[in-house]
Amino acid sequence: MKEKLSIVKIGGNVIEDEKALDIFLTAFSKLEGLKILVHGGGKLATQLATRLGIKSNLVDGRRITDKATVDIITMVYAGLANKKIVAQLQSKKVNAIGLSGADGNSIQAHKRPVKDIDYGFVGDIDGVNSELLKNFLSINLTPVFCAISHDGKGQLLNTNADTITSEIAIAMASDFDTTLYYCFEKKGVLLDINNSESVVKYINTAKYKELLSQGIIADGMLPKLHNCFHALENDVEKVCLGDDSMLDKNAELFTTLTL
Amino acid sequence: MKEKLSIVKIGGNVIEDEKALDIFLTAFSKLEGLKILVHGGGKLATQLATRLGIKSNLVDGRRITDKATVDIITMVYAGLANKKIVAQLQSKKVNAIGLSGADGNSIQAHKRPVKDIDYGFVGDIDGVNSELLKNFLSINLTPVFCAISHDGKGQLLNTNADTITSEIAIAMASDFDTTLYYCFEKKGVLLDINNSESVVKYINTAKYKELLSQGIIADGMLPKLHNCFHALENDVEKVCLGDDSMLDKNAELFTTLTL
Repeated sequence: MKEKLSIVKIGGNVIEDEKALDIFLTAFSKLEGLKILVHGGGKLATQLATRLGIKSNLVDGRRITDKATVDIITMVYAGLANKKIVAQLQSKKVNAIGLSGADGNSIQAHKRPVKDIDYGFVGDIDGVNSELLKNFLSINLTPVFCAISHDGKGQLLNTNADTITSEIAIAMASDFDTTLYYCFEKKGVLLDINNSESVVKYINTAKYKELLSQGIIADGMLPKLHNCFHALENDVEKVCLGDDSMLDKNAELFTTLTL
Repeated sequence: MKEKLSIVKIGGNVIEDEKALDIFLTAFSKLEGLKILVHGGGKLATQLATRLGIKSNLVDGRRITDKATVDIITMVYAGLANKKIVAQLQSKKVNAIGLSGADGNSIQAHKRPVKDIDYGFVGDIDGVNSELLKNFLSINLTPVFCAISHDGKGQLLNTNADTITSEIAIAMASDFDTTLYYCFEKKGVLLDINNSESVVKYINTAKYKELLSQGIIADGMLPKLHNCFHALENDVEKVCLGDDSMLDKNAELFTTLTL
Protein backbone atom coordinates (compact mmCIF):
# COMPACT_ATOMS: atom_id res chain seq x y z
CA MET A 1 0.00 0.00 0.00
CA LYS A 2 1.28 3.43 -0.89
CA GLU A 3 1.85 6.03 1.82
CA LYS A 4 -0.60 8.94 1.93
CA LEU A 5 0.54 12.38 0.67
CA SER A 6 -1.49 15.59 0.84
CA ILE A 7 -0.66 18.45 -1.52
CA VAL A 8 -2.33 21.71 -0.55
CA LYS A 9 -2.69 24.91 -2.57
CA ILE A 10 -3.32 27.86 -0.25
CA GLY A 11 -5.79 30.55 -1.31
CA GLY A 12 -4.39 33.93 -2.34
CA ASN A 13 -6.67 35.86 0.01
CA VAL A 14 -5.22 34.03 3.01
CA ILE A 15 -1.65 35.16 2.40
CA GLU A 16 -2.63 38.81 2.87
CA ASP A 17 -4.51 38.29 6.12
CA GLU A 18 -2.25 37.50 9.11
CA LYS A 19 -5.02 36.05 11.25
CA ALA A 20 -6.52 33.92 8.47
CA LEU A 21 -3.02 32.71 7.58
CA ASP A 22 -2.38 31.65 11.16
CA ILE A 23 -5.66 29.70 11.31
CA PHE A 24 -4.91 28.07 7.98
CA LEU A 25 -1.35 27.10 8.94
CA THR A 26 -2.56 25.64 12.23
CA ALA A 27 -5.00 23.44 10.30
CA PHE A 28 -2.25 22.53 7.83
CA SER A 29 0.10 21.63 10.68
CA LYS A 30 -2.52 19.23 12.07
CA LEU A 31 -2.99 17.47 8.74
CA GLU A 32 -1.66 13.95 9.34
CA GLY A 33 0.96 12.26 7.18
CA LEU A 34 3.27 13.58 4.51
CA LYS A 35 2.39 16.94 2.98
CA ILE A 36 3.44 19.67 0.57
CA LEU A 37 2.18 23.26 0.48
CA VAL A 38 1.98 25.54 -2.58
CA HIS A 39 1.21 29.26 -2.39
CA GLY A 40 1.10 32.35 -4.55
CA GLY A 41 1.52 35.84 -3.17
CA GLY A 42 -2.02 37.16 -3.37
CA LYS A 43 -2.21 40.88 -3.91
CA LEU A 44 1.07 41.53 -2.08
CA ALA A 45 2.99 41.59 -5.38
CA THR A 46 0.63 44.13 -6.91
CA GLN A 47 0.80 46.22 -3.73
CA LEU A 48 4.60 46.29 -3.80
CA ALA A 49 4.62 47.10 -7.53
CA THR A 50 2.26 50.02 -6.88
CA ARG A 51 4.43 51.31 -4.02
CA LEU A 52 7.46 51.16 -6.31
CA GLY A 53 5.58 52.91 -9.11
CA ILE A 54 5.77 49.89 -11.41
CA LYS A 55 2.67 49.59 -13.54
CA SER A 56 0.98 46.20 -13.84
CA ASN A 57 0.70 45.33 -17.50
CA LEU A 58 -2.42 43.28 -18.19
CA VAL A 59 -3.45 41.91 -21.60
CA ASP A 60 -6.92 40.33 -21.74
CA GLY A 61 -6.89 40.28 -17.94
CA ARG A 62 -3.62 38.35 -17.79
CA ARG A 63 -0.50 39.81 -16.25
CA ILE A 64 2.54 40.32 -18.44
CA THR A 65 5.67 39.47 -16.48
CA ASP A 66 8.39 41.89 -17.56
CA LYS A 67 11.84 42.02 -15.94
CA ALA A 68 10.77 44.42 -13.17
CA THR A 69 7.74 42.26 -12.42
CA VAL A 70 9.69 39.01 -12.17
CA ASP A 71 11.97 40.73 -9.63
CA ILE A 72 8.95 41.83 -7.60
CA ILE A 73 7.42 38.38 -7.72
CA THR A 74 10.72 36.87 -6.60
CA MET A 75 10.87 39.28 -3.66
CA VAL A 76 7.26 38.75 -2.61
CA TYR A 77 6.59 35.08 -3.44
CA ALA A 78 10.01 33.48 -2.79
CA GLY A 79 11.01 36.01 -0.13
CA LEU A 80 8.35 37.57 2.06
CA ALA A 81 5.42 35.17 1.65
CA ASN A 82 7.44 31.95 1.49
CA LYS A 83 9.72 32.66 4.45
CA LYS A 84 6.88 33.94 6.66
CA ILE A 85 4.95 30.75 6.00
CA VAL A 86 8.03 28.59 6.64
CA ALA A 87 8.90 30.40 9.89
CA GLN A 88 5.31 30.12 11.11
CA LEU A 89 5.12 26.42 10.25
CA GLN A 90 8.37 25.89 12.15
CA SER A 91 6.74 27.47 15.20
CA LYS A 92 3.92 24.92 14.77
CA LYS A 93 6.46 22.05 14.75
CA VAL A 94 6.27 21.42 11.01
CA ASN A 95 9.80 21.15 9.58
CA ALA A 96 9.00 23.26 6.52
CA ILE A 97 11.46 24.07 3.76
CA GLY A 98 10.70 26.86 1.29
CA LEU A 99 11.38 26.26 -2.38
CA SER A 100 11.19 28.01 -5.71
CA GLY A 101 11.48 25.79 -8.77
CA ALA A 102 15.15 26.75 -9.06
CA ASP A 103 15.98 25.33 -5.63
CA GLY A 104 17.28 21.81 -6.06
CA ASN A 105 16.13 22.10 -9.69
CA SER A 106 12.71 21.17 -8.30
CA ILE A 107 10.52 22.59 -11.11
CA GLN A 108 11.94 22.82 -14.61
CA ALA A 109 10.12 24.98 -17.13
CA HIS A 110 10.55 26.95 -20.33
CA LYS A 111 9.52 30.50 -21.13
CA ARG A 112 6.10 30.42 -22.76
CA PRO A 113 6.56 30.75 -26.53
CA VAL A 114 5.28 34.01 -28.03
CA LYS A 115 2.18 33.50 -30.16
CA ASP A 116 -0.44 36.28 -30.15
CA ILE A 117 0.72 37.60 -26.82
CA ASP A 118 4.19 37.77 -25.28
CA TYR A 119 3.52 36.93 -21.63
CA GLY A 120 7.13 37.72 -20.75
CA PHE A 121 8.87 35.69 -18.07
CA VAL A 122 6.10 33.13 -17.61
CA GLY A 123 7.00 29.47 -17.32
CA ASP A 124 5.28 26.38 -18.73
CA ILE A 125 6.34 23.36 -16.68
CA ASP A 126 8.49 20.61 -18.21
CA GLY A 127 9.12 18.51 -15.14
CA VAL A 128 9.09 18.13 -11.37
CA ASN A 129 12.09 16.68 -9.51
CA SER A 130 10.15 13.99 -7.66
CA GLU A 131 13.35 12.28 -6.44
CA LEU A 132 14.30 15.42 -4.51
CA LEU A 133 10.81 15.72 -3.02
CA LYS A 134 10.78 12.04 -2.04
CA ASN A 135 14.11 12.53 -0.30
CA PHE A 136 12.81 15.58 1.58
CA LEU A 137 9.63 13.79 2.65
CA SER A 138 11.69 10.79 3.80
CA ILE A 139 13.60 12.97 6.28
CA ASN A 140 10.36 14.57 7.47
CA LEU A 141 10.73 17.89 5.66
CA THR A 142 7.56 19.60 4.42
CA PRO A 143 8.23 21.39 1.11
CA VAL A 144 6.57 24.81 0.76
CA PHE A 145 6.55 25.97 -2.87
CA CYS A 146 6.08 29.48 -4.17
CA ALA A 147 4.76 29.93 -7.70
CA ILE A 148 8.13 30.32 -9.43
CA SER A 149 9.90 27.92 -11.77
CA HIS A 150 13.17 28.25 -13.71
CA ASP A 151 14.48 27.50 -17.19
CA GLY A 152 17.83 25.96 -16.22
CA LYS A 153 19.59 28.83 -17.99
CA GLY A 154 19.51 31.19 -15.03
CA GLN A 155 16.06 32.69 -15.57
CA LEU A 156 13.31 32.56 -12.94
CA LEU A 157 9.79 32.26 -14.36
CA ASN A 158 6.40 33.29 -12.99
CA THR A 159 4.23 30.17 -13.00
CA ASN A 160 0.60 29.56 -12.19
CA ALA A 161 0.31 28.16 -8.65
CA ASP A 162 -2.64 25.87 -9.53
CA THR A 163 -0.58 24.32 -12.33
CA ILE A 164 2.47 23.90 -10.07
CA THR A 165 0.25 22.13 -7.54
CA SER A 166 -1.26 19.69 -10.01
CA GLU A 167 2.10 18.97 -11.70
CA ILE A 168 3.69 18.20 -8.33
CA ALA A 169 0.73 15.94 -7.47
CA ILE A 170 1.01 14.10 -10.79
CA ALA A 171 4.77 13.66 -10.36
CA MET A 172 4.29 12.17 -6.88
CA ALA A 173 1.22 10.03 -7.68
CA SER A 174 3.12 6.93 -8.79
CA ASP A 175 4.84 6.72 -5.39
CA PHE A 176 2.14 8.02 -3.03
CA ASP A 177 -1.58 7.80 -2.46
CA THR A 178 -2.01 11.46 -3.35
CA THR A 179 -4.81 13.85 -2.39
CA LEU A 180 -4.85 17.37 -3.78
CA TYR A 181 -6.50 20.18 -1.81
CA TYR A 182 -7.28 23.39 -3.70
CA CYS A 183 -8.22 26.17 -1.28
CA PHE A 184 -9.88 29.17 -2.88
CA GLU A 185 -12.41 31.85 -1.98
CA LYS A 186 -15.53 29.67 -2.36
CA LYS A 187 -16.73 26.66 -0.37
CA GLY A 188 -16.51 24.45 -3.47
CA VAL A 189 -18.28 24.07 -6.80
CA LEU A 190 -21.58 25.93 -6.39
CA LEU A 191 -24.84 24.90 -8.03
CA ASP A 192 -26.05 28.49 -7.68
CA ILE A 193 -23.32 31.12 -7.90
CA ASN A 194 -25.43 33.44 -5.69
CA ASN A 195 -25.77 30.87 -2.91
CA SER A 196 -22.44 30.22 -1.20
CA GLU A 197 -23.89 27.16 0.57
CA SER A 198 -25.05 25.38 -2.59
CA VAL A 199 -21.93 23.22 -2.74
CA VAL A 200 -21.87 20.15 -4.95
CA LYS A 201 -20.27 17.70 -2.51
CA TYR A 202 -19.16 14.96 -4.93
CA ILE A 203 -18.22 15.20 -8.57
CA ASN A 204 -17.03 12.29 -10.70
CA THR A 205 -16.38 12.28 -14.44
CA ALA A 206 -20.05 11.75 -15.34
CA LYS A 207 -21.24 14.49 -12.98
CA TYR A 208 -18.46 16.78 -14.30
CA LYS A 209 -19.73 16.39 -17.88
CA GLU A 210 -23.30 17.01 -16.70
CA LEU A 211 -22.33 20.21 -14.84
CA LEU A 212 -20.33 21.37 -17.86
CA SER A 213 -23.26 20.83 -20.22
CA GLN A 214 -25.58 22.66 -17.82
CA GLY A 215 -23.19 25.63 -17.79
CA ILE A 216 -22.82 25.36 -14.00
CA ILE A 217 -19.06 25.09 -14.37
CA ALA A 218 -18.16 28.29 -16.20
CA ASP A 219 -15.76 31.22 -16.27
CA GLY A 220 -12.93 30.96 -13.72
CA MET A 221 -14.10 27.50 -12.64
CA LEU A 222 -13.44 26.04 -16.09
CA PRO A 223 -9.60 26.04 -15.94
CA LYS A 224 -9.71 25.11 -12.24
CA LEU A 225 -11.84 22.00 -12.82
CA HIS A 226 -9.94 21.15 -15.99
CA ASN A 227 -6.75 21.22 -13.87
CA CYS A 228 -8.37 18.96 -11.25
CA PHE A 229 -9.48 16.32 -13.75
CA HIS A 230 -6.12 16.50 -15.50
CA ALA A 231 -4.57 15.50 -12.14
CA LEU A 232 -7.15 12.71 -11.59
CA GLU A 233 -6.54 11.33 -15.08
CA ASN A 234 -2.85 11.15 -14.16
CA ASP A 235 -3.14 8.93 -11.10
CA VAL A 236 -3.92 11.52 -8.43
CA GLU A 237 -6.38 9.73 -6.14
CA LYS A 238 -8.68 12.54 -5.04
CA VAL A 239 -9.05 16.32 -5.37
CA CYS A 240 -10.79 18.49 -2.79
CA LEU A 241 -11.96 22.01 -3.59
CA GLY A 242 -13.10 24.46 -0.95
CA ASP A 243 -12.30 27.49 1.14
CA ASP A 244 -9.53 27.80 3.68
CA SER A 245 -11.51 26.04 6.39
CA MET A 246 -11.45 22.85 4.31
CA LEU A 247 -8.39 21.43 6.12
CA ASP A 248 -10.14 21.66 9.49
CA LYS A 249 -10.96 18.13 10.60
CA ASN A 250 -14.59 19.15 11.19
CA ALA A 251 -15.02 20.65 7.73
CA GLU A 252 -18.02 19.20 5.89
CA LEU A 253 -18.89 21.65 3.15
CA PHE A 254 -16.46 21.27 0.25
CA THR A 255 -16.32 19.51 -3.11
CA THR A 256 -14.59 16.14 -3.55
CA LEU A 257 -13.63 15.14 -7.08
CA THR A 258 -12.73 11.62 -8.24
CA LEU A 259 -12.64 9.97 -11.66
CA MET B 1 40.23 10.85 6.10
CA LYS B 2 37.48 13.41 6.19
CA GLU B 3 35.96 14.68 2.96
CA LYS B 4 36.79 18.26 1.94
CA LEU B 5 34.14 20.96 2.33
CA SER B 6 34.45 24.58 1.22
CA ILE B 7 32.28 27.25 2.82
CA VAL B 8 32.31 30.53 0.94
CA LYS B 9 31.04 33.93 2.05
CA ILE B 10 30.39 36.13 -0.99
CA GLY B 11 31.28 39.82 -0.83
CA GLY B 12 28.43 42.33 -0.60
CA ASN B 13 29.69 44.41 -3.52
CA VAL B 14 29.42 41.40 -5.86
CA ILE B 15 25.70 40.88 -5.32
CA GLU B 16 24.91 44.31 -6.77
CA ASP B 17 27.02 43.90 -9.91
CA GLU B 18 25.59 41.41 -12.43
CA LYS B 19 28.84 40.92 -14.31
CA ALA B 20 30.97 40.51 -11.19
CA LEU B 21 28.38 38.09 -9.79
CA ASP B 22 28.52 35.98 -12.93
CA ILE B 23 32.35 35.80 -12.78
CA PHE B 24 32.21 34.91 -9.09
CA LEU B 25 29.56 32.22 -9.54
CA THR B 26 31.51 30.69 -12.41
CA ALA B 27 34.57 30.44 -10.13
CA PHE B 28 32.40 29.03 -7.34
CA SER B 29 30.90 26.45 -9.71
CA LYS B 30 34.42 25.27 -10.60
CA LEU B 31 35.44 24.83 -6.98
CA GLU B 32 35.90 21.08 -6.57
CA GLY B 33 34.23 18.99 -3.89
CA LEU B 34 31.41 19.75 -1.49
CA LYS B 35 30.55 23.39 -0.94
CA ILE B 36 28.21 25.85 0.75
CA LEU B 37 27.68 29.51 -0.16
CA VAL B 38 26.60 32.32 2.19
CA HIS B 39 25.59 35.79 1.00
CA GLY B 40 24.14 39.04 2.27
CA GLY B 41 22.24 41.45 0.08
CA GLY B 42 24.74 44.25 -0.32
CA LYS B 43 23.18 47.64 -0.75
CA LEU B 44 20.08 46.21 -2.45
CA ALA B 45 18.14 46.23 0.83
CA THR B 46 18.97 49.87 1.52
CA GLN B 47 18.05 50.74 -2.08
CA LEU B 48 14.65 49.06 -1.78
CA ALA B 49 14.03 50.71 1.59
CA THR B 50 14.81 54.11 0.07
CA ARG B 51 12.49 53.48 -2.90
CA LEU B 52 9.72 52.53 -0.45
CA GLY B 53 10.40 55.61 1.69
CA ILE B 54 11.45 53.54 4.70
CA LYS B 55 14.18 55.27 6.63
CA SER B 56 17.21 53.27 7.73
CA ASN B 57 17.57 53.59 11.46
CA LEU B 58 21.23 53.53 12.49
CA VAL B 59 22.50 53.72 16.08
CA ASP B 60 26.29 54.07 16.43
CA GLY B 61 26.60 53.04 12.80
CA ARG B 62 24.64 49.82 13.34
CA ARG B 63 21.35 49.16 11.63
CA ILE B 64 18.26 48.72 13.77
CA THR B 65 16.03 46.04 12.27
CA ASP B 66 12.43 47.11 12.84
CA LYS B 67 9.42 45.22 11.45
CA ALA B 68 9.44 47.03 8.10
CA THR B 69 13.17 46.41 7.74
CA VAL B 70 12.96 42.68 8.46
CA ASP B 71 10.31 42.45 5.72
CA ILE B 72 12.61 44.25 3.27
CA ILE B 73 15.55 42.07 4.19
CA THR B 74 13.41 38.98 3.72
CA MET B 75 12.34 40.19 0.27
CA VAL B 76 15.85 41.13 -0.85
CA TYR B 77 18.08 38.54 0.85
CA ALA B 78 15.83 35.44 0.86
CA GLY B 79 13.94 36.45 -2.29
CA LEU B 80 15.72 38.42 -4.99
CA ALA B 81 19.39 37.84 -4.16
CA ASN B 82 19.07 34.22 -3.04
CA LYS B 83 16.93 33.01 -5.93
CA LYS B 84 18.98 34.84 -8.57
CA ILE B 85 22.13 33.18 -7.24
CA VAL B 86 20.43 29.77 -7.10
CA ALA B 87 19.03 30.06 -10.65
CA GLN B 88 22.42 31.15 -11.99
CA LEU B 89 24.23 28.33 -10.20
CA GLN B 90 21.72 25.88 -11.69
CA SER B 91 22.65 27.20 -15.15
CA LYS B 92 26.28 26.43 -14.26
CA LYS B 93 25.35 22.84 -13.33
CA VAL B 94 25.57 23.35 -9.57
CA ASN B 95 22.47 21.86 -7.90
CA ALA B 96 22.01 24.81 -5.56
CA ILE B 97 19.28 25.09 -2.94
CA GLY B 98 18.52 28.44 -1.33
CA LEU B 99 17.96 28.56 2.40
CA SER B 100 17.11 30.98 5.15
CA GLY B 101 17.69 29.77 8.70
CA ALA B 102 13.97 28.96 8.97
CA ASP B 103 14.11 26.50 6.08
CA GLY B 104 14.55 23.01 7.48
CA ASN B 105 15.20 24.72 10.83
CA SER B 106 18.74 25.15 9.52
CA ILE B 107 19.85 28.08 11.72
CA GLN B 108 18.26 28.53 15.14
CA ALA B 109 18.71 31.85 16.88
CA HIS B 110 17.23 34.14 19.50
CA LYS B 111 16.47 37.84 19.29
CA ARG B 112 19.42 39.77 20.67
CA PRO B 113 18.61 40.80 24.25
CA VAL B 114 18.12 44.53 24.78
CA LYS B 115 20.96 46.10 26.78
CA ASP B 116 21.99 49.66 25.91
CA ILE B 117 20.57 49.39 22.41
CA ASP B 118 17.53 47.52 21.09
CA TYR B 119 18.76 46.19 17.75
CA GLY B 120 15.27 44.98 16.92
CA PHE B 121 14.84 41.75 14.97
CA VAL B 122 18.50 40.75 15.00
CA GLY B 123 19.42 37.15 15.71
CA ASP B 124 22.26 35.68 17.74
CA ILE B 125 22.84 32.11 16.63
CA ASP B 126 22.10 29.17 18.95
CA GLY B 127 22.71 26.29 16.57
CA VAL B 128 23.14 25.02 13.02
CA ASN B 129 21.28 21.94 11.79
CA SER B 130 24.36 20.06 10.57
CA GLU B 131 22.37 16.82 10.04
CA LEU B 132 20.23 18.56 7.42
CA LEU B 133 23.27 20.04 5.69
CA LYS B 134 25.06 16.66 5.69
CA ASN B 135 21.98 15.09 4.11
CA PHE B 136 21.85 17.81 1.42
CA LEU B 137 25.56 17.47 0.65
CA SER B 138 25.18 13.68 0.45
CA ILE B 139 22.65 14.03 -2.38
CA ASN B 140 24.85 16.55 -4.14
CA LEU B 141 22.90 19.67 -3.23
CA THR B 142 24.83 22.90 -2.68
CA PRO B 143 23.21 24.97 0.09
CA VAL B 144 23.08 28.74 -0.55
CA PHE B 145 22.34 30.66 2.64
CA CYS B 146 21.06 34.20 2.97
CA ALA B 147 21.80 36.11 6.18
CA ILE B 148 18.54 35.33 7.96
CA SER B 149 17.91 33.07 10.95
CA HIS B 150 14.73 32.36 12.95
CA ASP B 151 13.70 31.99 16.57
CA GLY B 152 11.50 28.90 16.25
CA LYS B 153 8.51 30.98 17.33
CA GLY B 154 7.68 32.28 13.87
CA GLN B 155 10.02 35.27 13.78
CA LEU B 156 12.68 35.75 11.09
CA LEU B 157 15.85 37.48 12.33
CA ASN B 158 18.46 39.57 10.51
CA THR B 159 21.81 37.91 11.19
CA ASN B 160 25.38 38.86 10.33
CA ALA B 161 26.50 36.89 7.26
CA ASP B 162 30.10 36.52 8.51
CA THR B 163 28.82 34.98 11.73
CA ILE B 164 26.46 32.63 9.88
CA THR B 165 29.39 31.51 7.73
CA SER B 166 31.70 30.75 10.65
CA GLU B 167 28.95 29.04 12.67
CA ILE B 168 28.11 26.78 9.73
CA ALA B 169 31.81 26.00 9.28
CA ILE B 170 32.21 25.16 12.98
CA ALA B 171 29.10 22.94 12.92
CA MET B 172 30.44 21.00 9.92
CA ALA B 173 34.08 20.81 11.02
CA SER B 174 33.75 17.57 13.01
CA ASP B 175 32.54 15.74 9.90
CA PHE B 176 34.47 17.48 7.13
CA ASP B 177 37.92 18.85 6.40
CA THR B 178 36.56 22.39 6.27
CA THR B 179 38.00 25.46 4.57
CA LEU B 180 36.34 28.83 5.01
CA TYR B 181 36.62 31.47 2.26
CA TYR B 182 35.72 35.04 3.22
CA CYS B 183 35.44 37.22 0.12
CA PHE B 184 35.43 40.95 0.80
CA GLU B 185 36.51 44.13 -0.92
CA LYS B 186 40.24 43.81 -0.21
CA LYS B 187 42.82 41.29 -1.42
CA GLY B 188 43.44 40.10 2.14
CA VAL B 189 44.98 41.44 5.33
CA LEU B 190 47.09 44.44 4.24
CA LEU B 191 50.37 45.47 5.89
CA ASP B 192 49.80 48.97 4.55
CA ILE B 193 46.17 50.03 4.26
CA ASN B 194 47.11 52.39 1.41
CA ASN B 195 48.75 49.66 -0.65
CA SER B 196 46.20 47.14 -1.89
CA GLU B 197 48.98 44.75 -2.93
CA SER B 198 50.65 44.58 0.50
CA VAL B 199 48.87 41.36 1.39
CA VAL B 200 50.08 39.26 4.32
CA LYS B 201 49.92 35.82 2.70
CA TYR B 202 50.06 33.62 5.79
CA ILE B 203 48.89 34.31 9.31
CA ASN B 204 49.05 31.85 12.18
CA THR B 205 48.24 32.49 15.84
CA ALA B 206 51.69 33.95 16.62
CA LYS B 207 51.62 36.22 13.56
CA TYR B 208 48.04 37.25 14.42
CA LYS B 209 49.12 38.41 17.89
CA GLU B 210 52.07 40.26 16.35
CA LEU B 211 49.87 42.07 13.82
CA LEU B 212 47.38 42.92 16.56
CA SER B 213 50.09 44.40 18.78
CA GLN B 214 51.47 46.40 15.84
CA GLY B 215 47.98 47.82 15.21
CA ILE B 216 48.01 46.46 11.66
CA ILE B 217 44.76 44.59 12.32
CA ALA B 218 42.39 47.37 13.32
CA ASP B 219 38.91 48.81 12.79
CA GLY B 220 36.67 46.63 10.59
CA MET B 221 39.35 43.95 10.35
CA LEU B 222 39.21 43.29 14.10
CA PRO B 223 35.83 41.50 14.21
CA LYS B 224 36.58 39.80 10.87
CA LEU B 225 39.84 38.28 12.07
CA HIS B 226 38.35 37.48 15.46
CA ASN B 227 35.64 35.55 13.62
CA CYS B 228 38.27 33.69 11.54
CA PHE B 229 40.30 32.61 14.58
CA HIS B 230 37.13 31.67 16.43
CA ALA B 231 36.43 29.24 13.55
CA LEU B 232 40.02 27.91 13.56
CA GLU B 233 39.89 27.35 17.31
CA ASN B 234 36.76 25.28 16.72
CA ASP B 235 38.22 22.73 14.31
CA VAL B 236 37.90 24.62 11.03
CA GLU B 237 41.05 23.63 9.14
CA LYS B 238 41.86 26.80 7.21
CA VAL B 239 40.43 30.26 6.52
CA CYS B 240 41.14 32.25 3.37
CA LEU B 241 40.51 35.99 3.18
CA GLY B 242 40.58 37.90 -0.09
CA ASP B 243 38.60 39.60 -2.82
CA ASP B 244 36.15 37.93 -5.16
CA SER B 245 38.88 36.64 -7.47
CA MET B 246 40.18 34.44 -4.63
CA LEU B 247 38.24 31.36 -5.81
CA ASP B 248 39.90 31.50 -9.21
CA LYS B 249 42.32 28.58 -9.42
CA ASN B 250 45.10 30.97 -10.50
CA ALA B 251 44.56 33.34 -7.59
CA GLU B 252 47.77 33.94 -5.64
CA LEU B 253 47.26 37.13 -3.69
CA PHE B 254 45.09 36.43 -0.63
CA THR B 255 45.56 35.72 3.07
CA THR B 256 45.54 32.19 4.45
CA LEU B 257 44.92 31.78 8.17
CA THR B 258 45.67 28.69 10.24
CA LEU B 259 46.14 28.12 13.96
